[in-house]
Amino acid sequence: MYQGKYQTQYQELKQRVLQANLALPQYGLVTFTWGNVSEIDRNAGVIAIKPSGVEYDAMTVDDIVLLDLDGNVLEGHLNPSSDTATHIELYLAFSHIGGIVHTHSRQATIWAQASMDIPALGTTHADYFYGDIPCSRSLTKAEIEQDYEKNTGLVIIETFRQRGIDPAATPGIVVCGHAPFVWGKHAADAVHNAVVLEEIAAMAIATRQLNPTIKIQAELSDKHYFRKHGANAYYGQK
Amino acid sequence: MYQGKYQTQYQELKQRVLQANLALPQYGLVTFTWGNVSEIDRNAGVIAIKPSGVEYDAMTVDDIVLLDLDGNVLEGHLNPSSDTATHIELYLAFSHIGGIVHTHSRQATIWAQASMDIPALGTTHADYFYGDIPCSRSLTKAEIEQDYEKNTGLVIIETFRQRGIDPAATPGIVVCGHAPFVWGKHAADAVHNAVVLEEIAAMAIATRQLNPTIKIQAELSDKHYFRKHGANAYYGQK
Amino acid sequence: MYQGKYQTQYQELKQRVLQANLALPQYGLVTFTWGNVSEIDRNAGVIAIKPSGVEYDAMTVDDIVLLDLDGNVLEGHLNPSSDTATHIELYLAFSHIGGIVHTHSRQATIWAQASMDIPALGTTHADYFYGDIPCSRSLTKAEIEQDYEKNTGLVIIETFRQRGIDPAATPGIVVCGHAPFVWGKHAADAVHNAVVLEEIAAMAIATRQLNPTIKIQAELSDKHYFRKHGANAYYGQK
Amino acid sequence: MYQGKYQTQYQELKQRVLQANLALPQYGLVTFTWGNVSEIDRNAGVIAIKPSGVEYDAMTVDDIVLLDLDGNVLEGHLNPSSDTATHIELYLAFSHIGGIVHTHSRQATIWAQASMDIPALGTTHADYFYGDIPCSRSLTKAEIEQDYEKNTGLVIIETFRQRGIDPAATPGIVVCGHAPFVWGKHAADAVHNAVVLEEIAAMAIATRQLNPTIKIQAELSDKHYFRKHGANAYYGQK
Repeated sequence: MYQGKYQTQYQELKQRVLQANLALPQYGLVTFTWGNVSEIDRNAGVIAIKPSGVEYDAMTVDDIVLLDLDGNVLEGHLNPSSDTATHIELYLAFSHIGGIVHTHSRQATIWAQASMDIPALGTTHADYFYGDIPCSRSLTKAEIEQDYEKNTGLVIIETFRQRGIDPAATPGIVVCGHAPFVWGKHAADAVHNAVVLEEIAAMAIATRQLNPTIKIQAELSDKHYFRKHGANAYYGQK
Repeated sequence: MYQGKYQTQYQELKQRVLQANLALPQYGLVTFTWGNVSEIDRNAGVIAIKPSGVEYDAMTVDDIVLLDLDGNVLEGHLNPSSDTATHIELYLAFSHIGGIVHTHSRQATIWAQASMDIPALGTTHADYFYGDIPCSRSLTKAEIEQDYEKNTGLVIIETFRQRGIDPAATPGIVVCGHAPFVWGKHAADAVHNAVVLEEIAAMAIATRQLNPTIKIQAELSDKHYFRKHGANAYYGQK
Repeated sequence: MYQGKYQTQYQELKQRVLQANLALPQYGLVTFTWGNVSEIDRNAGVIAIKPSGVEYDAMTVDDIVLLDLDGNVLEGHLNPSSDTATHIELYLAFSHIGGIVHTHSRQATIWAQASMDIPALGTTHADYFYGDIPCSRSLTKAEIEQDYEKNTGLVIIETFRQRGIDPAATPGIVVCGHAPFVWGKHAADAVHNAVVLEEIAAMAIATRQLNPTIKIQAELSDKHYFRKHGANAYYGQK
Repeated sequence: MYQGKYQTQYQELKQRVLQANLALPQYGLVTFTWGNVSEIDRNAGVIAIKPSGVEYDAMTVDDIVLLDLDGNVLEGHLNPSSDTATHIELYLAFSHIGGIVHTHSRQATIWAQASMDIPALGTTHADYFYGDIPCSRSLTKAEIEQDYEKNTGLVIIETFRQRGIDPAATPGIVVCGHAPFVWGKHAADAVHNAVVLEEIAAMAIATRQLNPTIKIQAELSDKHYFRKHGANAYYGQK
């Protein structure tokens, strides 16, 4: 086991990542070990991430794995999450984000499986996500067979770039046939956004069942997004 | 912090509003801080309301904000709910009501997003809400951009007046593209009605799925409403 | 308060009825006070029933009301359930039943609101209910306006008689536009059947969504019903 | 009660089967006593199984029944599960399996009642089940009337053989008009797979509602299945 300089320095980072991972079952976002959260220390270029396939109720801070942005393990006695390569690509491409969550939460995964964007249908959505939450294209056979997890990250990035979506304003995606990836300013913020995504995904399924063509007004979406985000926000305590 | 004459006089009002706000997560009506309850002291013209964006599990009676009907803060060290202007318009227009709840509870919000009235389909609905629960029209661009929360209140009032609905008999609405507002005799009564609204909203979604054109008989709706309300009520203990 | 001969003699009956009523919120069948359970002592002609509109968490054995089959209160300081007249008609007509439950449980109520029988679609249904669970016809205007609760009982009885359904083999119904009534050998057995009804009502909604015309095989329905009921039953411990 | 050589030798087997049965209500897979788990000691040809119709909260290790593969009771004072003959046929035909679960869990049972395969629609499915989860054909009248439980096992086996499905890669089935049977390496593994089945059954219902014709890419299904199973697996800790 690694005994070097990181042990003390990154204890708080590891603790935050542990807590964010433990929040997933508390919010009902995961079954068994199906989920992982990471957070990055941008100054040091160090990522803390959940180990692969470990039970949440047995996980301790010592199980959290530290990596650099090339995927080299800096500290930890367990394999990092099998989705680590996806996290790394997102951290490299989306320079403003500090935490990432991947789950197979039921309602968001339904949209991923249906291969459909989660449409912006109300202010609950607009309060957190600006516009529709995109569904990625399918990966090609070659992208699946070689470097699958890295390519999952690349197709997420491609989706935001080709469709001109700002990942800071729309902090999540559903990957076609797979499940959601969600991000935020840090690990806990990413988990917060993942809870919101699950709620709005559930609402959107039933809304479309009642009214298949409805969309939110653009002005209402703008109003709710910008009363919580940006220079003119007036929600909460300043 | 305000130290004046209100501190003792309104302690019970603030306590009731705190308890009513804390009931929202207990009844599963809110995610995070998405909800707010207020109550009015009609004699004094004083409203107690939840502060904006504060976590439910950290909220204390000292966090509850007191306002007058012009929206001036009388007591409290935090910003009042960002939806305060909506509450004030409703208290001004609906003189019989004593408490108001706003949530983004899942089932009721689905109807708001679908831009559809919640149809009266059974006696569960009729026991508490007389006739369909209206969905407001969309706000105009101008109404959204300037004084949005006040205009949300005004469009609610317009809906009841134009459609000739009695807000005492139908104590709630879903605001188009947004979410429900529900009221009652006091804060706890408004929360009670919000729980009922959520249940009947859920039942109505699935009922319409099974039978898209069904409606409740008018006689049955009348019977159930008036066995619980008004001069000839015979439900419960007298 | 009544202090006569019943007090000791019917204490166990009242206790069983209290426990059966308290089981309703434990099984998630009721919101607030929306439900009531009764049990009859056939030898004495005495019914014990929940009082009207009393909170479950405050209810004690002393709140349970004793009545005779004419609806006269024999013991109790509270009004009996507003649905008492329905219970009495069912006890008079269905001589084999010993307990009755009325709830507005979500899934069963959806079928009542849709004005549709709950179709027998699988062995879960067949294990407890023989054939489709009927939905009653609507009550007439006259039946609603005068003696509504008694007429609710009469329309339930009419449904079973006109359609030739055995209330011992199909221990429940959904009343059109209203909600379920379920019965059993005693109060706890009726609650057990109400839990089953709620589960099969939920399954039936989604089953019909996937496959709108499916029905259970008659042979499979017979097999499951009769392996648990009647002379040739072989389920459980003898 | 049996006092012979098995008492000590099979105590751990019985304990594992007890724990696996108790896990069913903890995971929300059963209502009342609707479910049973067994495990086999292949070397000894001894099966441990839940007794029939016993409440989960009263069940102890002494209630677990030991049988041989001819269905003879070796140890136990209660009747074995009424589905024992189905378990035995599966153990005889599928030589690699060590544990079996039968439940009427809601979401999987919906597919059984709809008489439809559970389609592979995403990586959550592919992580555990290779390809669609089959729905059996209906049993014939003769198969139902005589040796029903044994024939339920035989029709499961027929389904896998006729359709060329490997029961090791697709560890479960929904039996037409009935409910799921799921298996695994041992009792706890079978329960694990039953939890997964319930989750993917729920997701598949809503996915098909949003997009009636969607299927998972074959390459993506292969990728997820084989990154967790077989010689080239790289998920979890080695």
